Amino acid sequence: MSTSGNCHKVRLLLEQLGTRYDWVEVNSAQGQTRTPEFLALNPNGKVPLVQRSDGRVLAESNAILFWLAEGTPFLPADGWQRAQALSWMFFEQYSHEPYIAVARFISIWTPADSRRRDELPGLRERGHAALAVMERHLQSAPWFTGPDYGVADIALFAYTAVAEDGGIGLAPYPAIQRWLQAVQAQPGFLPILAA
Amino acid sequence: MSTSGNCHKVRLLLEQLGTRYDWVEVNSAQGQTRTPEFLALNPNGKVPLVQRSDGRVLAESNAILFWLAEGTPFLPADGWQRAQALSWMFFEQYSHEPYIAVARFISIWTPADSRRRDELPGLRERGHAALAVMERHLQSAPWFTGPDYGVADIALFAYTAVAEDGGIGLAPYPAIQRWLQAVQAQPGFLPILAA
Repeated sequence: MSTSGNCHKVRLLLEQLGTRYDWVEVNSAQGQTRTPEFLALNPNGKVPLVQRSDGRVLAESNAILFWLAEGTPFLPADGWQRAQALSWMFFEQYSHEPYIAVARFISIWTPADSRRRDELPGLRERGHAALAVMERHLQSAPWFTGPDYGVADIALFAYTAVAEDGGIGLAPYPAIQRWLQAVQAQPGFLPILAA
Repeated sequence: MSTSGNCHKVRLLLEQLGTRYDWVEVNSAQGQTRTPEFLALNPNGKVPLVQRSDGRVLAESNAILFWLAEGTPFLPADGWQRAQALSWMFFEQYSHEPYIAVARFISIWTPADSRRRDELPGLRERGHAALAVMERHLQSAPWFTGPDYGVADIALFAYTAVAEDGGIGLAPYPAIQRWLQAVQAQPGFLPILAA
């Protein structure tokens, strides 16, 4: 689903690795992740999903990033640094995406009178809390993956870059703004499609 | 925090690895993860947190499991199997813990008249959806980590074993019940403290 940050993560790394792939558009907002065919591939009914040429599948955006990046400069070889990158990727899925991505989803894809809009103030407050944690890290480190750009930066970039879609402004976070620009300046960078 | 499933994961693996460690009790329900001293160690204000003897810290339970297990039988050496284990660990933090652990938290630690109890029906519904995904996997595979017991089993065991604390019964899931017993039969197994 091209407008999904979780899916965009995978596309961005594939492009930066120069890997050949076919992109199959699956729109969760139109129920395409709940068909019997899709649930046979991923019983959890979520995109992105990678399917290898032999049919084997791998779900969960950040697990896909980790698998694709093994042995490449996008994942540190050092065990402690890998663990720190994973720590940021779990932070992204637990403390960041459920607020920043969900605020964006509700803002863009629900009707103006949706009851779900009642959730927005709380989501924005917790989204800002996540951004404050990122800002603090970036005040003393250039990247989230280790000494260089890599998978944790890709994971956190996805929804941070479009946080304003959900009414979460980035003006209070100068270090995040610098980091977003540094990610965008990486070779092979590809922006997410406008929603 | 001994009653936290996320913390118990780390203790269980440390015990099974035979690693020496000191356990420092930090009770988030009493605000101990929000003190200036704790926030200096983990700006995200969450337990568990590992601090090495040289002072370096690592946050996020599943990143800690991955780091501790590298090079041991608790994490597969094969890249694809590692990615599948990670996929289950991200599933745990995104699709399982936010419902099953939060239903338990509200049921045990909030007053009987708490407004948060309004969340319980929705949390239980999504908790059952996660358990159904696990049940389906366990109908054709003995473990979540790969061919053997390991980190993804530890991650998923933590809150599945105490799901009934949050009113999420395990009777509909015979394969999960068998798997829970198989985890409990592992050498060095240690149950979570009663809340």
